[in-house]
Amino acid sequence: MTMRPFTSTISIDEAHAIIEAGVSPIDRIESVPLADARGRVLARDVVARFDVPPFDRASMDGYAVVAADTAGATREQGRRLELIGRLYTGDVPTVTVTPGSCVEIATGAPIPLGADAVIMVEETAQRGADVELFTSVRLGQNIGPRGADIAVGDTVLRAGQVLNASRIGALAALGCADAEVWVRPSVAILSTGNEIAELGRPLAPGQIYDINRYTLAAVVAEHGGAATAISTARDTVEALHQAIDSCLGHDLIVFSGGSSVGERDLILDVIRERGEVRFHGIAVKPGKPTLFGMLGGRPVFGMPGYPTSCLSNAYILLVPALRRMARLPSSAPRRLTMPLAARVASVAGRHQFYSVRVEDGYAVPAFKASGDITSISRADGYIEIAMDVTVVEAGTAVVVTLF
Amino acid sequence: MTMRPFTSTISIDEAHAIIEAGVSPIDRIESVPLADARGRVLARDVVARFDVPPFDRASMDGYAVVAADTAGATREQGRRLELIGRLYTGDVPTVTVTPGSCVEIATGAPIPLGADAVIMVEETAQRGADVELFTSVRLGQNIGPRGADIAVGDTVLRAGQVLNASRIGALAALGCADAEVWVRPSVAILSTGNEIAELGRPLAPGQIYDINRYTLAAVVAEHGGAATAISTARDTVEALHQAIDSCLGHDLIVFSGGSSVGERDLILDVIRERGEVRFHGIAVKPGKPTLFGMLGGRPVFGMPGYPTSCLSNAYILLVPALRRMARLPSSAPRRLTMPLAARVASVAGRHQFYSVRVEDGYAVPAFKASGDITSISRADGYIEIAMDVTVVEAGTAVVVTLF
Repeated sequence: MTMRPFTSTISIDEAHAIIEAGVSPIDRIESVPLADARGRVLARDVVARFDVPPFDRASMDGYAVVAADTAGATREQGRRLELIGRLYTGDVPTVTVTPGSCVEIATGAPIPLGADAVIMVEETAQRGADVELFTSVRLGQNIGPRGADIAVGDTVLRAGQVLNASRIGALAALGCADAEVWVRPSVAILSTGNEIAELGRPLAPGQIYDINRYTLAAVVAEHGGAATAISTARDTVEALHQAIDSCLGHDLIVFSGGSSVGERDLILDVIRERGEVRFHGIAVKPGKPTLFGMLGGRPVFGMPGYPTSCLSNAYILLVPALRRMARLPSSAPRRLTMPLAARVASVAGRHQFYSVRVEDGYAVPAFKASGDITSISRADGYIEIAMDVTVVEAGTAVVVTLF
Repeated sequence: MTMRPFTSTISIDEAHAIIEAGVSPIDRIESVPLADARGRVLARDVVARFDVPPFDRASMDGYAVVAADTAGATREQGRRLELIGRLYTGDVPTVTVTPGSCVEIATGAPIPLGADAVIMVEETAQRGADVELFTSVRLGQNIGPRGADIAVGDTVLRAGQVLNASRIGALAALGCADAEVWVRPSVAILSTGNEIAELGRPLAPGQIYDINRYTLAAVVAEHGGAATAISTARDTVEALHQAIDSCLGHDLIVFSGGSSVGERDLILDVIRERGEVRFHGIAVKPGKPTLFGMLGGRPVFGMPGYPTSCLSNAYILLVPALRRMARLPSSAPRRLTMPLAARVASVAGRHQFYSVRVEDGYAVPAFKASGDITSISRADGYIEIAMDVTVVEAGTAVVVTLF
């Protein structure tokens, strides 16, 4: 082996810029059934082709009336109207309301011809064939007019919106059985290294279990990607070429391990041979040896093999890239500002990822060492400490990105 | 039809208490492959059966040395050690480091016998068969000791924790191919009403599309449930009985429509006949006619038919119940405090659900009318206004629950 020390590392900002230049938003659209559309990103504006509701309807249970008939009605001095029909929700009105008459009507039922208001049932009493009203209603009261929610021609949803319950509801209101969404970027995940053992089998001496395959897949799924795990590759040129062949059908390739200077750099050599390395080495802690490049026109991340370094770099570098590919908005809503509970020291010259727990409104440091998965698994999120900052004092307001 | 006005409504707090008493955390456990475990709730504590890492390992690329050999080494005055071997990650050490010798070692590789520190490669240079060191290292430096991350017997994860990337990573570190998690509550979703049309078909007069089935399913999936849509039931006693029969295999039943006073109250009668109605009518806006009861020992929600009333009551009432059943923590992390951008008037005597957009750190009112799905689909979350509050002034700090 020839160990090649990092001759230079780049800053986190340079790394973000290089990654952004190498990553394009997905340009394929697919149609998915509405029941499977949650979390997907709408690919086209949705314009209403009819009014919602499609007819004037009662917004209260009560009686459809001519508003003028109710003038002056009070509890003490009611007004009587003749009950000439009933309209359930889903019915088509066949009677016409004329002065002096009314129609019993359920919430959501179409307003019958002639009626111009609904009086709520709580303000009435049945008196034989008549209904007594105890209050007056104004023109249009308790009527949901046709098109009040959505008017024909309205742009109801816009391309780029993430489909949540209410937006799925808006699509359903328009009768859309399917949603046109951006395809989720497919992400090949590959763990490399002779030390990597499959889960569920006993460890041989010198081996550790494959962690990164699972943490990376979870991060990818959380941020809009469709992860495919490629079989763990041993550190031989042949095995790595084969593994990369399996990755080439995907939109993004993420491997872990093998890019640190001591690990014979086979993967670095293989990527150099088949594609392009755009950076190798970032001034971040943990996770210096991270690599980014292009392979067959597709972006490729090389993550450190150490699980926490791998995962923290996935949050800092892979997540923004993946969200950009998936056309998801940046994850701003997952960010909370709160005071730091205890002083944190950082390393000058390296951007630091620092895991924290959220307790009683404080960010409590939870970081152990870069190889320790428990330092992240016991945390709720992380803060980032800029390269030129060496100490963050207790009480400082910090921005916590929740996992 | 006999219209039955609400003779009484209960407060939101009473409703929450009644629901909590009727809803039990799920008691069935299943084993899921780690790749499918994201978002699931761990059902048992996880205790380490071995140390992680399982051996002392290098935490840097460099040379495994006897620390005492490096005393006094500087850039100007290096120390030379004989290179007697190489250890890649995954290798099993066969050489022993003795004073005056060193072994090249990759990050993650097991520390060979005799060595008690690692000097990073950046602080060295190869000189023929020797290595020159430019700094001293202390005992144990750059060694990740066996068990440093997880010691045998450690409780690494606790029952009740939600599995995210890092916790999945902790399970992988322990070699667990599967996770023991609580079964997701199965939720039967049923839209009732003669006016309800299936998506993708033309609307007949008086009809509207089924919205609630889709919004409810999305909310259920978001909060730990497994939703099953039951075919829309028409408002006949026979159809409702049949629909309820289809729901009985599920842990929770949620129907919408048919519980408002005007809609002939068939569903109310059917639930009374086959089970128990625990409340019907809550002082909330929108969504007064909401019902909660028990059917065959299982909790049942009756949601208003109006889409926004249905969805807002799903957020306020169904979500806490479902999270309790699914053993998910309350959704506190989705809550942000921010100033209200404009004055909001509320109705005295009713707890109000009020949708808002988040813009520039302000909560901007986004509410239209209770039937309007667009008032929620254009919002980012909601605030709740207590029953006794009639006005919330601009600038007041409000708690926004994000969708």
